Amino acid sequence: MPKQVDHRERRESIAQALWRIVDQQGWARATMREVAREAGVSLGQLQHYFLSRTEMLAFAMEFASEQTFHRVERGLNSLNQPPHPREVLRVVLLEMLPLQPDARATSRMNAAYVLEAMHDPSLQRQIGIGLRDGRAMVERLIRQALNEGQISPDRDPEIETDLILALTGFATLLELNVVEPEAALTAIDQHLDRLFRPAS
Amino acid sequence: MPKQVDHRERRESIAQALWRIVDQQGWARATMREVAREAGVSLGQLQHYFLSRTEMLAFAMEFASEQTFHRVERGLNSLNQPPHPREVLRVVLLEMLPLQPDARATSRMNAAYVLEAMHDPSLQRQIGIGLRDGRAMVERLIRQALNEGQISPDRDPEIETDLILALTGFATLLELNVVEPEAALTAIDQHLDRLFRPAS
Repeated sequence: MPKQVDHRERRESIAQALWRIVDQQGWARATMREVAREAGVSLGQLQHYFLSRTEMLAFAMEFASEQTFHRVERGLNSLNQPPHPREVLRVVLLEMLPLQPDARATSRMNAAYVLEAMHDPSLQRQIGIGLRDGRAMVERLIRQALNEGQISPDRDPEIETDLILALTGFATLLELNVVEPEAALTAIDQHLDRLFRPAS
Repeated sequence: MPKQVDHRERRESIAQALWRIVDQQGWARATMREVAREAGVSLGQLQHYFLSRTEMLAFAMEFASEQTFHRVERGLNSLNQPPHPREVLRVVLLEMLPLQPDARATSRMNAAYVLEAMHDPSLQRQIGIGLRDGRAMVERLIRQALNEGQISPDRDPEIETDLILALTGFATLLELNVVEPEAALTAIDQHLDRLFRPAS
């Protein structure tokens, strides 16, 4: 039996092989056999770590969420302390969009995962928990800004939270080159500027 | 050889079989073999109409776009004439979200198609044309409303167009039950209300 840390490391390197395939060739090509080949292990070894494609996908997404979390954390550490809620929301939104290679890979994984989850209750539960956590975090920031008078009191925190989350719709528009990265950034800043405008 | 009209009809009934599979079982299950079974034709007959899964998918999406177009048209005909640009945008947005069974099937097809298109240049071209047409239509409506003073002149038509398009991000949030249909409608109306507010 490998040690626990090796087991984790091996699973992560398999998840990264899966990402590379999804990023470069698409989800349909990410079979157990292809992932084993890309990760440089045998199919039997892969099955030692993941019993099924669904299990492998669930782990790869969990790992992707952790990576996104670390990217967000690094982004937040680079802000003036304590960071302004507007800047926190901006960092979170930008890390969820395919604006640089790491975030692009996660974003594509995410699209594949959402599609799979529509028909798989256990994946749907997993992604649902993650998304509701994310939603709660955004709502906390908005309520904090409302309390501190950075957002006008006539704004409804629930509606504003949903509108912020909906902006992740830029992911698809960016992937398909319908909107340029610069235009997406401008639109997001415009939306945040209007939100963070105290009552005059 | 079947007559042209029969050919078209048969292709449409195959596209509908594909939709049912994608809607109920997910994209991964929509193989040529499964679609033939669902459509009640042999695999050989299916291949007479579509040489490949990609070709079948491209046709199914084209057909889905036509169906969406007709739904939007019916929605627009039910508005007061001539319709207000705000109401036109609302009808278009709502028909693109999975809020009722027809639109849900199209929305799921769309998610599968986008994922496939990221790695298939010919699909990407096809979906790109459709999305840019849609974008141009939204921008025309916004410019019209700006000219008629229904939108404040300090709003930028390009940025407002991108923000409207990004609201299609509600599709994923609705599919995964992170946002309820009613909350999505409220948020969209809130966004449109703020946009369609003439300069005071």
